[in-house]
Formats: sequence, structure tokens, C-alpha cells
Amino acid sequence: MLHNDLLLRALQGEPVGRPPVWMMRQAGRFLPSYQRLREKYDFFTRCQTPELVAEITCLPVDELGVDAAILFSDILVVLQAMGVEVHMQEGRGPWLPHPVERPADVDRIHIPDVHATLGYVFQGITATLEKLNQRVPLIGFAGAPWTLLCYLIEGKGSTGFEKARAFCYHYPEAAHHLLEKLTHTTIAYLQEQVKAGVHCVQVFDSWAGWLGPEGFQLFALPYLQQIATALSPCCPVILFPKGATFGLSALADSGARAIGIDWTVSPAQARALVGHGITLQGNLDPAILLTDVNTIRRHTLRMMEQFGIRHYIANLGHGILPQTPVAYARAFVQTVQQYTPAQQLSTKS
Amino acid sequence: MLHNDLLLRALQGEPVGRPPVWMMRQAGRFLPSYQRLREKYDFFTRCQTPELVAEITCLPVDELGVDAAILFSDILVVLQAMGVEVHMQEGRGPWLPHPVERPADVDRIHIPDVHATLGYVFQGITATLEKLNQRVPLIGFAGAPWTLLCYLIEGKGSTGFEKARAFCYHYPEAAHHLLEKLTHTTIAYLQEQVKAGVHCVQVFDSWAGWLGPEGFQLFALPYLQQIATALSPCCPVILFPKGATFGLSALADSGARAIGIDWTVSPAQARALVGHGITLQGNLDPAILLTDVNTIRRHTLRMMEQFGIRHYIANLGHGILPQTPVAYARAFVQTVQQYTPAQQLSTKS
Repeated sequence: MLHNDLLLRALQGEPVGRPPVWMMRQAGRFLPSYQRLREKYDFFTRCQTPELVAEITCLPVDELGVDAAILFSDILVVLQAMGVEVHMQEGRGPWLPHPVERPADVDRIHIPDVHATLGYVFQGITATLEKLNQRVPLIGFAGAPWTLLCYLIEGKGSTGFEKARAFCYHYPEAAHHLLEKLTHTTIAYLQEQVKAGVHCVQVFDSWAGWLGPEGFQLFALPYLQQIATALSPCCPVILFPKGATFGLSALADSGARAIGIDWTVSPAQARALVGHGITLQGNLDPAILLTDVNTIRRHTLRMMEQFGIRHYIANLGHGILPQTPVAYARAFVQTVQQYTPAQQLSTKS
Repeated sequence: MLHNDLLLRALQGEPVGRPPVWMMRQAGRFLPSYQRLREKYDFFTRCQTPELVAEITCLPVDELGVDAAILFSDILVVLQAMGVEVHMQEGRGPWLPHPVERPADVDRIHIPDVHATLGYVFQGITATLEKLNQRVPLIGFAGAPWTLLCYLIEGKGSTGFEKARAFCYHYPEAAHHLLEKLTHTTIAYLQEQVKAGVHCVQVFDSWAGWLGPEGFQLFALPYLQQIATALSPCCPVILFPKGATFGLSALADSGARAIGIDWTVSPAQARALVGHGITLQGNLDPAILLTDVNTIRRHTLRMMEQFGIRHYIANLGHGILPQTPVAYARAFVQTVQQYTPAQQLSTKS
């Protein structure tokens, strides 16, 4: 049915003529068209209005021709559904006025009926699928339990989320109890996204790297595994454990179809860590998109040569930076889409 | 001459009864005695007054009994000496009103006469050595060229220093020119510190991890190597490339006597990467010092068992956090100092 199913074929490890390409945070601040909507509607209005979700999600498909759409939403809507007050301060990030500070605070985090509390997300998916009209697949997503815990405990963004790490080491039992609640909710939430029609899901463990190998093993890995196990029978799962090169090999056996990697690991090392049966996604340093078209092309081509064409989804190593010029983002996308692998050429000749 | 030369013996790889211990940022905000001085004198007055430098540097030796002192100063004083305006906003970090934005801006960064411009640091070393009175070694330090470039270009702290990364990829020639100036100055600065009497030096490449393996190879490694090569004949050199696990093996051959590691790499993996001829320093997650005495002891003991007693300096994986209770920092230091390795016990019995 899909006109462009490159992403799904890459996730299944099927042969492709070139890798699919999309960009994390592509439905976001770097687009002037998004900025205009941002001036009119506040953050949660944008997330909660199905028509706006559909419009924003489709912007990068319309304007850049990426090979996949990712639903416009935020990882913290799950915390709101769990009874937590979350504010989004434009340009300054999230603020949770009542963070989890003590084990007793975990009791006030409840497992919600996701259909009742997050219905607007599923309606947004329906509206988006209609607007996409089978052009490209739609990726659903959620934050990983550890990353959600980071915000729950810090109450805001942080350069290292040390309060969250300290909480886990100080109160491991309460931390696991909280992570279980988050996992349970996330699984139900992603399953409902699949029912609503997303073609695959990505789990963002944006702060996994801060845990270190031992902390990752304890407080991130088991929950990522549970999510991958529960969702894999429904749809392809992409796990993105940012900064956690030490966790890649363990995640390769989680049931996920793909692992996202950032630019602090080389394609060759990542491949060595995960083996050959799984798709890798990434990993251009988003700062490259602040340079110039030639530099972007050169780095993108080298990246693709290092990953190889199969079992690979071209992307950035983290979200696109807000100050990225649209023309430079387009140069990245087009470089991938115009790529003709040397190997393929020589096979043809 | 030194009453406690454990640090120097560990740096030389000589046998020790137990590892030495100190903490990055130990002469800093977590100490109420430092906070009192902070209320009286602004940041650069504290850095530029030899008596205050001596007093602050000795605080953790007096109050916690650490096995080494590290000079109280800041990595950005070098930029001031190079003609850059640097302000320190209490509680908010550095601010450089005229950051480097274009290649032409590199011309206004000049190589200074370090003796004339940073004389107060060397006087601070003299005053500190007198006050230390041979109790423990004094560690001198500087920021690595890449980390200094980060501040020069961003103009302030950042969660990822993407402007600095983009500058390097966009203007590699200007970036290398700037890094050369910084390296030249840093070498002269550290050599003068050694002449003034420091027993060893540490180079902080706090933002090395943000470069990724390829960027590190280009914009950090060559300059760390130059510094290690120039300083190693004068005194032992410790390199701390925070976040750059991918750079550890290359640094093992730099001539440095020790490599500092953060908590995102396990002691076993770090040892495998650097080999057996070099000392490792680190790597307790500073967030552990926010938990409780038992947790601190347990994690510290496990860390020491993993590193082994020789070729090892106990430390945190990054600077001690400002909110760390003094009693908890002391528990960390004492756990190391009271450590009796199981192996040594069994040899004695």
C-alpha cells in the first residue's frame, strides 16, 4: 500500500536500492513553517490537537521529502497521563513543579488507562495517516523508562541528571518500582499507537549514556528489553540508547529490529558490537548540518560508505539542531537519496 | 621529602600499600569553608591572590585528608592571558562576551608571555607549597586545547558544544590554527607550573567526548599528544579525556603517565584499552556521593577491586558535585585509605 516503504524494508533487512533517511526532531524548530505554528499555539495545544499533529508531522515530508514521518508529540505526555504536572517553557524545556524526591513520591505516580488519557495521540495518528496518504511510513515513539525517570526526578532538563542517578543508587527498590510503572505504561501506550496505525515505533533513551555500563545494566536495559519483547510481535521496534555504546551489544538480542546510534561510536564499531542480523540507524553529528553543503555531502557520503547499504537507516546521531538552515537539512536528505553505492555500480557494469 | 608520596609512586607504577585518593574539584563548592571565602571574594580575586589560592588548595587536605592537593584555579585563566575577556557568573558559569565566530577572529587570540600574564598562578603555587609543607604532592593543571576552544567559540557552557564542533568541521584550517596557539600556550603554562614546583600536571579535556572518534582524532588527540610529549620529561602527566572512551587506547602511547576515566567505561574495559604500562585514575560516578555512607563504601570498594591496587589512583569520574555532603566525600576518601586488598591479606597470612 505504501508508495515508499524503504524504511520498513530496511527494518526487515530486505535489499534496498539505497538506505532510507529521516531525521530525529525533523518535525520541529528548525522549520520556519513549524515556527509559525509555534507562535499561534502553545506546546501542548500543538500536541493535543489531531489536526495540528497531522500538519506538523507532515511538514518535513512535504518540505524535505524524507522517507519516513515521525509523529509530532513529546515523550513527557506519558508522565502527564500518569498524573504528573508537566509544563513546557518555550525555548527553555520542560518543567515539573513536583518532582519525585523520595520513595513515597513514587506512590503518587499511577498507571493510567492510556486510551482515556492519551486518546488525542491516537486521534493524531489517525489524522496524520490520512494526511500522509500512504506516501511514507509513520513512526510512533515513546521515551524509555530511564529517560522518563530522569525528568520525573530532576524536574527539568539537566547536563547530567545526577539527581536521577543518585536516586537509583540510593533507593534502588523505589527506582525499580517506578521504572516498572513507566514500562507498563509505555508498553500499553506503544501498543495503542500500533493499533492506531503507526508502522513502527522508536524508543528514545536519550539519557542512557549517563548511567555508565553498570547503571545501564541495572536501570535501563531490563526495561528496554521488556518493551522490545512486548512490541516486537506487533511492529518493528527501534531502540535509541543515546551515549550508551557500552549497551549496544546487549540490546542486539532484545528483539528490536534496529538500534539507533549517536556519533560517538563509529559505524564499524557499532556493527561489530551488534552483529549482522540487526539494522543500525544514525549517526551523523547534527553539528555537521551547521557547516556548508559540501561538508555535509562529504561527511554524509563517508558515513554511508562506512555503514553499507543494507540493514541501515540514515539519520543524525541526535535530534536536528534548531538553528539548522533548512537548505542544509535538505542537502543531507538529498545526499542520501541520490546515493549510488560504488559496489552496486560495479555489479551493474 | 614528601611525607605522603603515594600519588607519585602510583604515577610511576611503583608498588603501593593502597591506592592514593583525591577528587576532581575537591577545592570547591561542596566545602562550606570554601563557600565562606566565596562570599567574601569574587572568583578571579580568589584565583589571582596567592594567599587565597594556597588557603583554598589546602582546604581538602586539611579537612578530608586527601593524598594530593590540586591547585585552585580555573582552566579559563589561560584564555584571559591570551587576550580574551572572560567573566565568571557565580552559580551560572563562565561568560565570554566576544566569542570566536569566524576564522578572522582567531587572529585576535595571541600567544602570551605566560610568566608575565599568569605570574599570579606561579606565585599561588609557591604560597601553596609553603602551606602544604611537604604533606602531599601538588597537582598543577590546564584545560586541553579542544576544551578551551569549546568555550572560546560557544562563549559559555553548553550541553554539547555544537557550535564548537561545527566551527571545526566548517573551518578546519582556522580551528587547527587556534588549537596550535592554545597548545603552544598550554605547554609554556604547564612548564612554568612545573618550574614553580608542582609535582605533576593534569590536562582536563572535559568535552573530548562530544567530538566522537573521528573528531577526537582530528581536533583533540594531536594536541594532547604534543602536550604530553613536551611535559613528560619535566614531570608525570595525567590526561583526562572525559567521555572519550574511544580515545583511550591512542592516549596510552602519548607519553602520559596516567589517564583519567569517567564512569561510562568499566575499569576492566579501560585497562584493556590502555594496556598494563600506564596508571588509570577514576572513576566513581560523582552521583554516588549523593546517596548514603553504606552505598558509597560498597561502590568504592567494588571499584577498587576492579581496578586493582597498582597503577591506580582513586578518584571520581568527574568533578565532585556542589551539593555533596562533606561527610559523604569523607566516607569516599576514608574507604580508599582504609582499604586492605584481599590479595595482600592472603599474602600476609
